Amino acid sequence: MSPLFGRLTVAGVGLIGGSLALAARAAGLVGEVVGVGRSEANLRVARERGIVDRVETDPPAAVAGADLVVLAVPVGSCATVAEAFRPHAAPGAVLTDVGSVKAEPVAAMEARWSDPGLVVGGHPIAGSEAAGASAARPELFRDRLCILTPTVRTRPDALGRVRALWEGVGARVEEMDAGAHDAILARVSHLPHLVAYALMDALAGARVDGRPVLDYAGGGLRDTTRIAGSLAELWRDIALANAGPLRAALAEFRAALDRLDALIAAGDAAGLGAALDAARAARRRVDEDAG
Amino acid sequence: MSPLFGRLTVAGVGLIGGSLALAARAAGLVGEVVGVGRSEANLRVARERGIVDRVETDPPAAVAGADLVVLAVPVGSCATVAEAFRPHAAPGAVLTDVGSVKAEPVAAMEARWSDPGLVVGGHPIAGSEAAGASAARPELFRDRLCILTPTVRTRPDALGRVRALWEGVGARVEEMDAGAHDAILARVSHLPHLVAYALMDALAGARVDGRPVLDYAGGGLRDTTRIAGSLAELWRDIALANAGPLRAALAEFRAALDRLDALIAAGDAAGLGAALDAARAARRRVDEDAG
Repeated sequence: MSPLFGRLTVAGVGLIGGSLALAARAAGLVGEVVGVGRSEANLRVARERGIVDRVETDPPAAVAGADLVVLAVPVGSCATVAEAFRPHAAPGAVLTDVGSVKAEPVAAMEARWSDPGLVVGGHPIAGSEAAGASAARPELFRDRLCILTPTVRTRPDALGRVRALWEGVGARVEEMDAGAHDAILARVSHLPHLVAYALMDALAGARVDGRPVLDYAGGGLRDTTRIAGSLAELWRDIALANAGPLRAALAEFRAALDRLDALIAAGDAAGLGAALDAARAARRRVDEDAG
Repeated sequence: MSPLFGRLTVAGVGLIGGSLALAARAAGLVGEVVGVGRSEANLRVARERGIVDRVETDPPAAVAGADLVVLAVPVGSCATVAEAFRPHAAPGAVLTDVGSVKAEPVAAMEARWSDPGLVVGGHPIAGSEAAGASAARPELFRDRLCILTPTVRTRPDALGRVRALWEGVGARVEEMDAGAHDAILARVSHLPHLVAYALMDALAGARVDGRPVLDYAGGGLRDTTRIAGSLAELWRDIALANAGPLRAALAEFRAALDRLDALIAAGDAAGLGAALDAARAARRRVDEDAG
């Protein structure tokens, strides 16, 4: 049986791009895998770990003959990379991405691909603060959700093949409108990242009686700010590409902070206890849902 | 050799109180351990796990003959429990606590103990969202920091024995002023808890196109809000007992959020990238310091 995609080109062989290549190959979904990226050191790791069959650094060689092109680069770079690839891509080449923002980047990719019907926006919810080809692992997407955001232009066959790829590497696939995706992810992912970065920003230089407060960090702070260890470039791009929904989510979060602050200022033990208990119950449900 | 404390009474045999009892007994630092608390089910677990030798439910029996009384109850309850124990405590009984706020609770305990010189405020930085006697474990304090906050009234011998107890269970002990402690913990612990609860409060009922956003939670949100699974009663008490420093820390955090929000609103990629990268560098140092 021939693979779903004969040749796969992965632009950005990091945690997500590298894991997808490993998993797709392990599942027999792709033939040859070509890796392309900015960092020679990272591409060398990808080659040594067998994530890719070969690496290329310039666009014509990277994309020639590819049946599927996966952009696993910071969302702010998707349009540029798509534009660089376009003149060299085979007719019929499907273009997809893995970015955490969909509306603006998918529109930008559609505008830059020969056939916009072959563009399929995708987002596997499986990131972490780990980065690079060395962090890639084939089981990363198993039982994780991957959201696809087809538009009115997307061809059903292209959508179906990208769906089959994600299902083939173990993900659950859900299709939704790019705007809905961006509003949801602004709240459950982009906002928590902004909050974690802001906590570290507030605490980084803080001292009390000359003591750096971070010398006293415990497990709670470490958990809460773990994702502030994520690559700044990725999250800069995500915040800017999803500025509207993210700022709306931030306003909702500020309102929640205001409510708790007002209860503390008023010394309202009953009200504060009830609010914290409701938040705790919601948090416990998140763990239960995750199994 | 006789133990450091012949009889230890632990009020609140939960994660911290239970772990201290287990560790102190394992290290031969205490003779008999008496547990007292509100929950019969929890005391039964404490008895079954061998955390305590016996359990008592009323103050006279609980505190009689104790050389050391450890209050491991929510900080809002320390004064009440100290007051209930006082008439029945032996002369010379040392009173200490494990709460995450020190200035107000230590003053309240001093005001309620026969000899305020025998009150030693303590705080092992070793909590987690786990709770109850079933979560207690003897190695909890190993290589963790325990802050003691003696006042001008504290007797050196009482301080020295409480220090020896914590060092004996593997903790590093640092002494500091209660006000400095509260300002530091407001930032590295109480603020992150408030932020985690506020995130869950903001997201708990949020829907996009009818979809509950929490159905899409990934590892980032789970990490960031893990501590919102902590007992609401504990954190209600901490927030109210440390309201001033916590609200000051919250104002600093809001200022950091404002800075990031302004960079996003302005589309300032360079500025936002630099701010996130600085926060990331600070976060990485926290992990390095933790070894």
